[in-house]
Order: sequence, then structure tokens, then C-alpha cells
Amino acid sequence: MSTLGELGEAGILARILPILSGAANTERTLIGPGDDAALLAVPSGSVVITTDTMIEGKDFLLRGDAPGRSPLGSTGEEIGHKLAVQNLADIAAMGAEPTALVLSLSAPATTPLALIEGIARGLAARSARAGAVVIGGDLGGADMISLTVTALGELVPGLGGRAIRRDGARVGDVVAVGTPQLGRSAAGLALLLGGHDPAELGDVQRGAEGALEFHRAPEVDLEAGHRLAAALGHDLHAMIDVSDGLLRDAGRLADASGVRIHLDADGLATMAEALRPLADSLGQDPSAWVLGSGEEHAMLICLPPSALQAARDVLRDAGRDLTVVGRVLPAGEEGPRATAAGVNEQGADGSALGWDHFE
Amino acid sequence: MSTLGELGEAGILARILPILSGAANTERTLIGPGDDAALLAVPSGSVVITTDTMIEGKDFLLRGDAPGRSPLGSTGEEIGHKLAVQNLADIAAMGAEPTALVLSLSAPATTPLALIEGIARGLAARSARAGAVVIGGDLGGADMISLTVTALGELVPGLGGRAIRRDGARVGDVVAVGTPQLGRSAAGLALLLGGHDPAELGDVQRGAEGALEFHRAPEVDLEAGHRLAAALGHDLHAMIDVSDGLLRDAGRLADASGVRIHLDADGLATMAEALRPLADSLGQDPSAWVLGSGEEHAMLICLPPSALQAARDVLRDAGRDLTVVGRVLPAGEEGPRATAAGVNEQGADGSALGWDHFE
Repeated sequence: MSTLGELGEAGILARILPILSGAANTERTLIGPGDDAALLAVPSGSVVITTDTMIEGKDFLLRGDAPGRSPLGSTGEEIGHKLAVQNLADIAAMGAEPTALVLSLSAPATTPLALIEGIARGLAARSARAGAVVIGGDLGGADMISLTVTALGELVPGLGGRAIRRDGARVGDVVAVGTPQLGRSAAGLALLLGGHDPAELGDVQRGAEGALEFHRAPEVDLEAGHRLAAALGHDLHAMIDVSDGLLRDAGRLADASGVRIHLDADGLATMAEALRPLADSLGQDPSAWVLGSGEEHAMLICLPPSALQAARDVLRDAGRDLTVVGRVLPAGEEGPRATAAGVNEQGADGSALGWDHFE
Repeated sequence: MSTLGELGEAGILARILPILSGAANTERTLIGPGDDAALLAVPSGSVVITTDTMIEGKDFLLRGDAPGRSPLGSTGEEIGHKLAVQNLADIAAMGAEPTALVLSLSAPATTPLALIEGIARGLAARSARAGAVVIGGDLGGADMISLTVTALGELVPGLGGRAIRRDGARVGDVVAVGTPQLGRSAAGLALLLGGHDPAELGDVQRGAEGALEFHRAPEVDLEAGHRLAAALGHDLHAMIDVSDGLLRDAGRLADASGVRIHLDADGLATMAEALRPLADSLGQDPSAWVLGSGEEHAMLICLPPSALQAARDVLRDAGRDLTVVGRVLPAGEEGPRATAAGVNEQGADGSALGWDHFE
């Protein structure tokens, strides 16, 4: 099994570029990987851009028995898939369609090439399904695997170049997410960090397997963002993807919009009930998973109640659905913020829920 | 002195975003930092894109006396400056002008905010001088500082959307670099890794200081790329920036173009002579510095002899110059490659010179 150090930069690129460029032959790719920079056609005249990093040991554990790994950890394909999803979700959350990605990969010389090939395959495959191609990248050395993707996208035609921002929520809006289930990523993380093998969990084995799978390689409706933007137009008041937890990301929407977002809908209780058997078996609170789970990447939207049915219809046409999770209220004396029924209604800040990279 | 961990994500962003967005209010920035993604106007209809990572301990040493640091190491401003230069040079090497950058920054919670502010200032300042703005980014935790920039640019008007690639060198072309001096980055690296304080080097103190400074924060003519492209048009046959060493990067041009590039001009000897006193004091070979120094980021170009004077005039108008370093010959029996007089003319591969991230 060859390592990166044995192959050298040119040897690695000779193996990786065909994997990436297999999906790169679209009409938008004017210059693909291999030159100083890539060149992408941008017919609409503006480009949406986002970037995100995953670092071994912080953002993922490799699968294995060696120190720093876990038998429940991620394969290369899963890492590449997740890397695509978290970037493409940011593009989607602007109401845009992804077009292209670049990857900067740093890794130890002892890394097996097969692992890097897996990452490239996972990234290219998930991106291709979203209509985006990997058009370039960079290779470097590091003491652990560090992966940064920058994704580009274009706004939906017909909205006059308008992106869906965080600051448009209005009092009276319905708050909804583009998924029937939040919380699985946190559940999967609890299993991974606790070393709980689903095969040893009896009745909740299947739920545990699903949670671990979702945590390692979240399957998310990334088309919801641009579908909703195209169908609702100006009725789609605000959108963000759930990357650091529902309560925390709703707080960002509330803050940008100068409103209070109150999360109290039956949909949240239903989500928590679905996770309760698994949570009970781990001695955890399923509601905390639903409100705090990061890396869910579902779209969180605010829209007038009159537009809710149209939004549902758009997603149902694609076999998906929307779950109402709350409503937009005027900011109270405590200023713009998100509150959850029974959690921080009485002034507690709820910041123990959700994900801050530096806390 | 606050650390990232004390401030948390929101607190860090509140301090960093004003530094970045101070330079971000250009007409191209439709949506700047703070939403899921940024939005950049791309009036030309295509975008040039490149990405590059710098990792603490691999790509830079922090200044200081603690373990893993060096009194000769880099300040935050220098790191940010270098990060800008290495990305902007890739944009320049396509014959394009940079427009925008995004930064993904991962760092330990113990990192002082002041260091991150310095990196942001260095990045924003050097980018602004090149006409580019930092329009977005991402923050995350890591065991060491890891910085990835993705830079965007647009092709020079009037070339019909043509980028200057690596594969256009023709037999008979002159090979030149957009700098009077290569080798300083390697010299600076030798000083840094050897712990040689310039103040203790007597006669060569000033040369040593200049080399260290160039290594930590290379000052490069990043405008040469688009100036030459605009002035020479189709006479600018091929271009690359010297990021992994002259001989190695010339080899990439040769390989892409199916030719041999032979480096034998007097200009190389002049460059080596200028570094000889410093090299002698360290017991090193100045020619190896000139041929092998990475992170120089000067433009390396191939053009017909008839266009040489025009190319020189363009750069001299801006107070810069071009140095002829070699010529393009037919590929010999050994296939396309770069050779240097007295180094690998007789079949040796010269690969000990230059920089491979995995060797």
C-alpha cells in the first residue's frame, strides 16, 4: 500500500486528478486541475463563495484501531462526502446552486494513498450529484490530515440576482427546517466518542447505525435551498443551514433580523421522540440532540404562513418535506435571540446547546 | 491578552471582521463576510480560482522562544502577507487580476487573539494592494494554526477570455523571470532553520536580514502577470509562478509544453554571485539557492525573442525588470524536462533541487 511520501507530489497528483476530473468535464470548466489556477465560466455575472475546513481528530476520526482512530470512525469516502455536504449546504443556504469546488489537502507523508483516493472519490461523487465539479486544488504536508474546500455557486435565475440572507426574518413568520429529523449527528457523535458499537446496543441497534452513518456522511436535501428560493421568491424571507445546532443557528437568524425566534412546535417533540430510545440507552436527552446537533446541514427558513403550503409542495415534489419548528416574534427586552420552549424562555441563554469551535 | 478560547467564535469574529472588511467595501462585494456564503460580482463572465494552505511548523514558524517557535520566526502580519502572496501569485500566473479571497482559519483555543488579528491585517493589507478584498471565511479549532486561502480573479480584458497556461512554450522561446533575484527565500530558510541571527553574521548581516525578511514575507511583483498578459497578448506563450524552485517549475512548464527548457543564462550566475557572501558564510552553494528556492513567486515566462523588449518595457514602466534565465529547446531523448547548466545536463534528474511537500 503506497504512502504519499513514497509517491511524491507528482505521483499523488497522477492518481488523484483522474478521480477528481472524472466528474470535471462540464461545460463550465474552462481550465480544470493542473495549472496555476482553474478557470470557471460564470454566466450569471456573480458567484457565491464559501469555505470550510475539516481536521483529523477535531472534525473527524479515521476508522481503525490505531491510536487516535476508532473502529466507528470514518472512511475516506465518508470524509469526502461530508466535506462536500458542509460546503454545498452553505451555497444552498444562499438560494444558490453549486457549480465548482477546490480542495486544499494537507497530510502526513505516511498517509496511505488509498485513504486520499477515498476522500477524493467521496468529494467528487457527492459534488457531482449536486451538479458541481472539483476544478482544482493544492497538496501539502502536515502532521495530521487537514482538508479545506472552497465551493462556488450561482444564484437561481429569476430572482434578479437576489441571495437569500439571514437578515430578512419578519415578525409573524413561520420557522421551518427542510428535514423530518434533526439530532442524528449529535447522536452519532455521542456513539463515536463513547465507543458504543451499535451491534452491542440491542433494540436500538438500527437507530444507532443510522445516527453514526448520518454523523459520518450526512445525507441532506441540498436542493431544498435553491428549489425554495426559485419557488417562493421574495416570500423566502431568510435562510441558513443548521451547522452548529438549531438553537444556535436560529439565534444567528434572529440576531441578523432583529427578532426573536421561538422554537416550540410539535415537530420538535416528534423529532425528539424518534430519538428517545437511543438517547435513553445512552443516558442522554433527545431534546438536547434536536436543539443542539451541529453538522445537520438542513435548511432553516423563515417565511410567511401564507407561503407555507407552496414551500411544502415544492419539497414534496422531490419526495422531501418541511417541518415547522417555531415562529418569529418581536425582539423582547433581552434583544434579538432564539428561545426554545422549556430551555431558555426565562432568560437562561441556552448556550450550552450547540457547537462553538473554541469553547 | 485574550485567547480564542476566552472569546469564543462570536467574540473572535467581532474582532476579526472589521479588520477584513475594512478593505472589503468595493463595488464587487455584493455580500461580504457574515452570512452562509459571500457573493462577488464577476462582470467578465469567468472566474480564475486557486487555493493554498499554510500550516504552523510546516510552512512557517511563529516568532518566539517557546518550543516550536524561533526568535527568527514570523509575526502574524508576515504570515498573513505570505498567505496572500502565494495565492495571488497563482492568479497572476494565469494573466489575471485578483478580485477576492476567502480565509479558512483553524487554531488552538490557546492562541492569542493578537496573533490572529495580525494574520488578518497582513492578509487584508497585501490583498488590498493587489486590488483584492477578503470577502469571507471560516473559523475552526485545531492543534496548530492552519490557514487556507482561496483566491479569485478575472482575466485581463482584451485577450478574449484567454488565460496564460503552462503548455504554450515553443522551441526558440526565451525563458525569463520577473525579478532580478531568485534564491532569497531558500537563503532565509537556511538562516531560520540553522538559527543564524543576522546580527551575529558580521559583513553579511544586511544580506541575511533581507533574505530572512523575504522568506517570511516575500515582496513580489504580482502585477507582472496581468501586465505582461495585457501587453504581449498571444506572444506570452506560457507562464507559471516560481513556488517550488526555478528548476522544478521550469520542468512543469517543459512537461506541459512538450519541450526542454535549458537554464544557462548569465542572469543566473549574476543572481548566484549576489548571494555568494551569505552562502559562503553558511557553507552553502548559492547556485542551488537560485535554482531550488521555493516560495519566490516571481513570474516565469516563455516568449519569442522578438517580444522580449516589449516585455521589458512593460515592467520597467513600473520600476521592475525581467531577467533572462534560459531558452526553450526541442525535447530530447529523455523527453520534456528542464535542465540547468552544470547540474543535470548529462542526465542527472536534478530533483534534489526544489521543493516536494512529501519528500
